[in-house]
Amino acid sequence: MFNSFGEIFRFTTFGESHGKAIGVIIDGVPAGLKFDEEFLVSELDRRRPGKNRFATQRKESDTPEVLSGVFEGMTTGTPISIVIFNKDQKSKDYSNIKDIFRPGHADFTYWHKYGIRDYRGGGRSSARETAARVAAGAVAKMILRELDIEIEAGVVEIGGIRAENIDYEYAKNSPIFALDSEAEKKWIEAIDKAREEHNSLGGVVKLRIKNLPVGLGEPIYYKLDNILASAMVSINAVKGIYIGNSEAHKLTGLENNDEISKDGFLSNNCGGVLGGISNGEDVELEVFFKPTPSIFKPQKSVDIYGNEVEVNLKGRHDPIVAVRGSVVAEAMAACVVADMLFLNMTRKMEYIKKIYQ
Amino acid sequence: MFNSFGEIFRFTTFGESHGKAIGVIIDGVPAGLKFDEEFLVSELDRRRPGKNRFATQRKESDTPEVLSGVFEGMTTGTPISIVIFNKDQKSKDYSNIKDIFRPGHADFTYWHKYGIRDYRGGGRSSARETAARVAAGAVAKMILRELDIEIEAGVVEIGGIRAENIDYEYAKNSPIFALDSEAEKKWIEAIDKAREEHNSLGGVVKLRIKNLPVGLGEPIYYKLDNILASAMVSINAVKGIYIGNSEAHKLTGLENNDEISKDGFLSNNCGGVLGGISNGEDVELEVFFKPTPSIFKPQKSVDIYGNEVEVNLKGRHDPIVAVRGSVVAEAMAACVVADMLFLNMTRKMEYIKKIYQ
Amino acid sequence: MFNSFGEIFRFTTFGESHGKAIGVIIDGVPAGLKFDEEFLVSELDRRRPGKNRFATQRKESDTPEVLSGVFEGMTTGTPISIVIFNKDQKSKDYSNIKDIFRPGHADFTYWHKYGIRDYRGGGRSSARETAARVAAGAVAKMILRELDIEIEAGVVEIGGIRAENIDYEYAKNSPIFALDSEAEKKWIEAIDKAREEHNSLGGVVKLRIKNLPVGLGEPIYYKLDNILASAMVSINAVKGIYIGNSEAHKLTGLENNDEISKDGFLSNNCGGVLGGISNGEDVELEVFFKPTPSIFKPQKSVDIYGNEVEVNLKGRHDPIVAVRGSVVAEAMAACVVADMLFLNMTRKMEYIKKIYQ
Amino acid sequence: MFNSFGEIFRFTTFGESHGKAIGVIIDGVPAGLKFDEEFLVSELDRRRPGKNRFATQRKESDTPEVLSGVFEGMTTGTPISIVIFNKDQKSKDYSNIKDIFRPGHADFTYWHKYGIRDYRGGGRSSARETAARVAAGAVAKMILRELDIEIEAGVVEIGGIRAENIDYEYAKNSPIFALDSEAEKKWIEAIDKAREEHNSLGGVVKLRIKNLPVGLGEPIYYKLDNILASAMVSINAVKGIYIGNSEAHKLTGLENNDEISKDGFLSNNCGGVLGGISNGEDVELEVFFKPTPSIFKPQKSVDIYGNEVEVNLKGRHDPIVAVRGSVVAEAMAACVVADMLFLNMTRKMEYIKKIYQ
Repeated sequence: MFNSFGEIFRFTTFGESHGKAIGVIIDGVPAGLKFDEEFLVSELDRRRPGKNRFATQRKESDTPEVLSGVFEGMTTGTPISIVIFNKDQKSKDYSNIKDIFRPGHADFTYWHKYGIRDYRGGGRSSARETAARVAAGAVAKMILRELDIEIEAGVVEIGGIRAENIDYEYAKNSPIFALDSEAEKKWIEAIDKAREEHNSLGGVVKLRIKNLPVGLGEPIYYKLDNILASAMVSINAVKGIYIGNSEAHKLTGLENNDEISKDGFLSNNCGGVLGGISNGEDVELEVFFKPTPSIFKPQKSVDIYGNEVEVNLKGRHDPIVAVRGSVVAEAMAACVVADMLFLNMTRKMEYIKKIYQ
Repeated sequence: MFNSFGEIFRFTTFGESHGKAIGVIIDGVPAGLKFDEEFLVSELDRRRPGKNRFATQRKESDTPEVLSGVFEGMTTGTPISIVIFNKDQKSKDYSNIKDIFRPGHADFTYWHKYGIRDYRGGGRSSARETAARVAAGAVAKMILRELDIEIEAGVVEIGGIRAENIDYEYAKNSPIFALDSEAEKKWIEAIDKAREEHNSLGGVVKLRIKNLPVGLGEPIYYKLDNILASAMVSINAVKGIYIGNSEAHKLTGLENNDEISKDGFLSNNCGGVLGGISNGEDVELEVFFKPTPSIFKPQKSVDIYGNEVEVNLKGRHDPIVAVRGSVVAEAMAACVVADMLFLNMTRKMEYIKKIYQ
Repeated sequence: MFNSFGEIFRFTTFGESHGKAIGVIIDGVPAGLKFDEEFLVSELDRRRPGKNRFATQRKESDTPEVLSGVFEGMTTGTPISIVIFNKDQKSKDYSNIKDIFRPGHADFTYWHKYGIRDYRGGGRSSARETAARVAAGAVAKMILRELDIEIEAGVVEIGGIRAENIDYEYAKNSPIFALDSEAEKKWIEAIDKAREEHNSLGGVVKLRIKNLPVGLGEPIYYKLDNILASAMVSINAVKGIYIGNSEAHKLTGLENNDEISKDGFLSNNCGGVLGGISNGEDVELEVFFKPTPSIFKPQKSVDIYGNEVEVNLKGRHDPIVAVRGSVVAEAMAACVVADMLFLNMTRKMEYIKKIYQ
Repeated sequence: MFNSFGEIFRFTTFGESHGKAIGVIIDGVPAGLKFDEEFLVSELDRRRPGKNRFATQRKESDTPEVLSGVFEGMTTGTPISIVIFNKDQKSKDYSNIKDIFRPGHADFTYWHKYGIRDYRGGGRSSARETAARVAAGAVAKMILRELDIEIEAGVVEIGGIRAENIDYEYAKNSPIFALDSEAEKKWIEAIDKAREEHNSLGGVVKLRIKNLPVGLGEPIYYKLDNILASAMVSINAVKGIYIGNSEAHKLTGLENNDEISKDGFLSNNCGGVLGGISNGEDVELEVFFKPTPSIFKPQKSVDIYGNEVEVNLKGRHDPIVAVRGSVVAEAMAACVVADMLFLNMTRKMEYIKKIYQ
């Protein structure tokens, strides 16, 4: 709860955007997993801002330090702690907004909930926290790789422009994780325009989990799909999620039901989940991101004393949060799947005997 | 986990559609709450199928028996157990599908996950389980009423036809909880047509939480919105959720940000949640239901031995699950809010002193 | 939390001693376990009071009704709900103590904590609740039997008289679960004397878990021993617990350390637990019960209005709660072990591959 | 679970004795608490070994670094992360025991549970981990101080020699936290003798919680006493616990029941807990520590290949772990009480209205 996620594969994050460090403790990682530190760094690098003009120019230093849980390159079953120290803090960029609630940000709600707020950037509500999630996700992916389970994601819509084709391979090398090379061009134009206009754009991420065994997901309240929903909506700027065909609510039962043959399901409107349990098809979902709230145009707001003010932000920000959000969505999905794998191991007497006999 | 939901206000449900009973234990209910058993019955009645032609004709007997936790009309702080015995079981209706996986249902995944399945109806995956949720939600609502917090929901879209106006008052007396009297007519036509054609329809429920205090929701992984997402997607047939303006991903930051004045927010695109915390505006969300999987047309499938078969269902089913789903969505939202209220009480030293000094 | 115990094998109890029913939902039971209802009844029968003069004469009706989770004699992986309806309520026995706090009972603390109290008997704090635990323990034992894990317990001390020999087989047929036939005679005398004098006695239960695999228990805060401690001290009237040789704190390291040979440990002072993890030896512990608080001599107390009063109890009560407590201790231990077995399955990559490859 | 403790005030520790660092994330700390970093350091200093000859001479560097959750001297409601980097590692001291299971240690069980083990010192099972608990306890104590709740502990028995008087004030300045100045002399003699003989001693810690409000503790499975039991037995080397008069199991009901007058309870055999809930008297308990397993005499054991070996330890170790254990017991008790305070706030409608109306 609060700052933890997962039941067995369970991680807990900490840290503010402009504090000393952010980090994560990953508990419940099985012993005997080869720990791939290079992969950890490369995953953090995918999320890291400042790489190109499609992301915030604030240069975060995402060098992870693994403080525990790994011994001679292998996990030991004890908690893995990963810390990323903050270096490029530039607190002064934020001093003009010390007492002001930025529209679209969590300033207002943190202030009222806690009566105190780290006003330097987003504090705890900053997207910087998602680096800690990506670190957890990297460890989850190390586990999934051993079982050939793969998670892929990319951008399927930006600024209302929808991809026509879906190519997860293409996305891997796209600077904006675009799933469609045609749409990519229009998206880049739209992003450049938004940046010039000091504005920002919303977008949609599409995510796929491949090679999942049948049977993952715990009815009734820890289903594969409702926990994926929880995971995704917990990401900054995510406002919605859809599992499977995102038009399902417009269809009839006859259109939407996936018929079954000897060789498997004949369609995948359900997105690989039936009754909250994976059915062996690809798990597919879409994640809806609002536009970055940090824009550089005057906006009406109030300060902590109740005075009306005009907010004028400065600084460097993503014009589109969905792009980096794609990496975070992958990480969260990986953590959910790891957790579901572990839980499912305890759900059949047959499995229990397999281990203890 | 598994069959429990919530951290402090925490309920656990049990029961199969054609077993002896379904029920719920509600733990974490504070002592000293007037227990309104009539209200409990009326809430169950709103969800109950068989009331009119827009819902399944299977007559469920939803008479709740309160076995514990209430003494002389007041809650005592001990767990409240509510059981609903199954009476109208008609097991024979289902015998023809004993070894067959019905498309769109959880038969396939339960069988593969557990290696065994209560084949009489949906068993645990039946919508019948949602009666237990409505019972829990009724108790949550008893708490919320004392704080003037109100939860309302209704249908905003059926079969691709969208409401033009939203009137929560109207929905309360509509046989299909329609939020719009104009759309209601078209929806009823569409439902009647679907039933005649032995088909079913998807739909969208809109839900509003009024008078919520500022500050509910626990960052980072137990936010108000991601737990609402988890709650909603855990409901049978729900495939998606959206918090606030469901077009946010198509907007620019300038369009989407909600500016603030002395008198509050000037718009509510965020749906009353910023950074996962309630901001004092109405919390608003949409819930996307797939069409009822039980349709009465021949469908391709396989049996548990791997043989290809034609499925021909008989019986009585909702042509549109979203209608009754509206009541379940309210119940789940009420449980989430109660939980968030309790958690928030422990988040400020000021509150702690208020209780203990 | 509150009324639940366990992480994966997790049960939740409800019910008051003089309410309609008590019961338990057992969640996390794997599918494919033969459900032995006769065994469930026999376990409840062992705990049931009124069997002989060594236990309270209040005749409880402990007929369990299994409402869910079992289909055609097998567990299905869904929650198992077991309800025991209260029949022999005799509320009038308790009317004289409606407004009075009985010394040694929870009347005082429930009243102050909740501001309301079911004054008919102990309500929720009654030992009657332990029947629900025994039901959960019976299900846990069904799982353990499949792995040849056995849990035995008996009385090792009553009224300060200590057993000289320990014979778990003898205890099984002793009316007071005595571990020592010699001590049994003295204990029976002491119990008869206490009853005549309207007084009660404390005692100590000794418990053994046999055939446990090495490796159960999760460091650091969900160790086998600290969760056993939590389980035992949660039982009514238990005030203490000791794992292994209960003189360990008086020994030197040289005396207390258990040396190891090729054939296993050369002694078992540690009680089968090292670093919180089972080491393959018998797990052994002692559980310390205070004397039954219900005695039939005048005692000083106050009423809910703050007036000083003399309490004079009537009714039928155990002169020694440790005897039946022995059965409850077994049940709780069984639940802990089932939970630890399940958790341990997820702690090694080797196990994970065994299931998924 | 695993490496976390508590429900609302919840901490998670990480780190191995000879890894890079140990640390703790403390989640659930309310906002608006003055964070007393000096106090944190002083608490760690009380536990720190190497201070005098009664503790291990290994000099641990217990300088805590607060990485998050505190802003301008106040807690913000976000997770507080505290890291202590390991400096004085001296790995070579331990190389001779790389493949050997030290009797009384967790080497054997970690190896078998995980199939891998950080053989440098105790790794995760080292008492070094308790520094992280003391850090968490220091934060809990900061909260308790605001409510005048005080936790005190000291040594009441060493090597079988029992204190005759109990003086918590005296213990505060005793180098061995002795509760009795007379016994202290004998204990120091016994400790010196044990050290000379390369042996070690067990002991008993007595702990008191003062000024606790009535009503803390959540029946039935999260009682004040069973969670204290869990907390205490989770501490390295603790084998038992007793709440209240540790002779209760030898008494009769008449002797053991605490009668009540207008001015409170007339005795405190129950140790301040009735039915698992605090009754307003001092909460008192005893914690039983086995002797330090690290002794410097030859012992029989086996290595990881199954060969029988003679273990000859070198190095510097506590001859008596109970002394420093006293500080850890205080810390754990403080964390339990903070958690219980928060949970209790949600248990009465009256409290809920106090916050929200």
